[in-house]
Amino acid sequence: MRKSAQTLSTLVLALIASLIFSAPAMAADPLPSWNDGKSRQAIVDFVAAVTEEGGKDYVPPGDRIATFDNDGTLWVEYPMYTQALFAFDRVIELASQHPEWKTRQPFKGVLEGDMKAVGATGMEGVMELILATHSGMTATAFTQEVSSWLATTRQKRFDRLYTELVYQPQLELLAYLRANGFKTFIVSGGGVAFMRPMTERVYGIAPEQVVGSSVVAEFQVRDGKPELVRMPEINFINDKAGKPVGIYQHIGKRPILAFGNSDSDMQMIEYTMAGQGRRMGLYVHHTDAEREYAYDRESHVGTLDKALDQAADNGWIIVDMKKDWKVVFPGNQRMLLPTK
Amino acid sequence: MRKSAQTLSTLVLALIASLIFSAPAMAADPLPSWNDGKSRQAIVDFVAAVTEEGGKDYVPPGDRIATFDNDGTLWVEYPMYTQALFAFDRVIELASQHPEWKTRQPFKGVLEGDMKAVGATGMEGVMELILATHSGMTATAFTQEVSSWLATTRQKRFDRLYTELVYQPQLELLAYLRANGFKTFIVSGGGVAFMRPMTERVYGIAPEQVVGSSVVAEFQVRDGKPELVRMPEINFINDKAGKPVGIYQHIGKRPILAFGNSDSDMQMIEYTMAGQGRRMGLYVHHTDAEREYAYDRESHVGTLDKALDQAADNGWIIVDMKKDWKVVFPGNQRMLLPTK
Repeated sequence: MRKSAQTLSTLVLALIASLIFSAPAMAADPLPSWNDGKSRQAIVDFVAAVTEEGGKDYVPPGDRIATFDNDGTLWVEYPMYTQALFAFDRVIELASQHPEWKTRQPFKGVLEGDMKAVGATGMEGVMELILATHSGMTATAFTQEVSSWLATTRQKRFDRLYTELVYQPQLELLAYLRANGFKTFIVSGGGVAFMRPMTERVYGIAPEQVVGSSVVAEFQVRDGKPELVRMPEINFINDKAGKPVGIYQHIGKRPILAFGNSDSDMQMIEYTMAGQGRRMGLYVHHTDAEREYAYDRESHVGTLDKALDQAADNGWIIVDMKKDWKVVFPGNQRMLLPTK
Repeated sequence: MRKSAQTLSTLVLALIASLIFSAPAMAADPLPSWNDGKSRQAIVDFVAAVTEEGGKDYVPPGDRIATFDNDGTLWVEYPMYTQALFAFDRVIELASQHPEWKTRQPFKGVLEGDMKAVGATGMEGVMELILATHSGMTATAFTQEVSSWLATTRQKRFDRLYTELVYQPQLELLAYLRANGFKTFIVSGGGVAFMRPMTERVYGIAPEQVVGSSVVAEFQVRDGKPELVRMPEINFINDKAGKPVGIYQHIGKRPILAFGNSDSDMQMIEYTMAGQGRRMGLYVHHTDAEREYAYDRESHVGTLDKALDQAADNGWIIVDMKKDWKVVFPGNQRMLLPTK
């Protein structure tokens, strides 16, 4: 008797404490890094509308699917996609095993730091680089390569790990959506196996909620041990018109919110907006040369051109990085350091 | 002051009530349809081991991935896979638009109810049937076809909808695993778009946690409306050695528990068991001709032969339907009737 009375008073104290501390927490701004303005207001209005039970725009939690592009939408893609930089570093690392690379483009260009020569080989050259550096090993070995590269390689201008060059306002938005019953997915042209080692830790997005491009994988028994081996063959390119396809094959539901930053995201956003009921499509516009980068119509990465022209007619939100975001990167770098 | 004192005593009462009522709930058997025995004990021991914080077999929640085959593991597959029956019905429905089917196998066989003739066309014939009936429409239209067929078509022997011919012990196991922090996935040779319309309602498994075979899909703008169109071309066969590949591409983590019922599940289970730490692989053995069906080594569907021979050596659990399951199907048919 005595013990349970004690337990009860402990519980009551805990209750009172939780009442005291939860009130300010509930009132706290869920999007502190977003400036007041049209973009922020549109997001808050949309979330309020689709979560209002009995409201005309109500969407049940299982259908609150939000898809985010990765490069340029959740983390920095300028002046070069992080995965391409990883591929370049792998070429340098593997060069001694491939003497023929010294005289063959695009490998020669990478080894000599001649990015114009690499660029001249076009999409075909990029694919060749990706396949040469992303296949021929087990799935486990590739994951380790990526993790170790991400844990040690720093971006030059900001002297930060790439996983620290994620956008603080987007981290808040992802958390805000999840707190409102959304399921958040990444839908990126990047390689799914390149993203998965970091998405859970950095964005709170589990590997199975990452949709991306992939190479063919093969089940093999090596020395009596079943392994998945990555083959030098493209399986799927999850970009442009591939994005809605990837969403269909992987998620099986049409998103109600999609966020991109370039013309490569247009089909994903068109597909999202064409569903029934209230929908939202957004693009990050990189307008901030000082805090990040400024590029759009004529950029070599993340070109935002047609989408910019068509945004107003289609009701797409253009998020202006300079105006809409109070901060760009997480302030406390340690917060995002790898845990191992 | 007065009001918050009242609120507090209401909360205390609520707390006491929850303490009283939660005790029996916690003590309730989570697997009431499983008989006591080795299979049940192995499951309970495994779950206890991987969820024991600080224990040597502890697995963090994000890595508690459980994969289940569908046909013959979660619902009836005998005497014929449900999806094949759907394809046969679609052939009959579409026959007037395809006069050539009257004289061409395997279509002729389906139209004349000559299953031997259909069977004689082998895997190639089955693929032809699947492609002819599963493509050429939008993703939305196909989902509606499937939903309407599942809501109205009854299996003859049991006079139940197919969604009512799911295994009650497995529904309990799925819920038990989820209650213990597992993420549950379906990994089936069946078509992902055929399963998704029912998995959330019937198994509590959301569409994005269903991995299966697929046809190629294409993003098209039809009459100004963006649509996904299903093409008459196989995209991926998620069967046998394709299962670990599907798991890698879709989930991106190796399961710690995998449950199948046939030799087609062996690679998934081998891949699962080969991971580090404690693992579990199980097969349903269909031994119950009275309550369901009895078949294994020489069956035309769900052949369980090699896996049966190799189970003991590999530490795989063979779940004997007759001995291990108290009931096979949910008792209250209404429970599983479609909600619309």
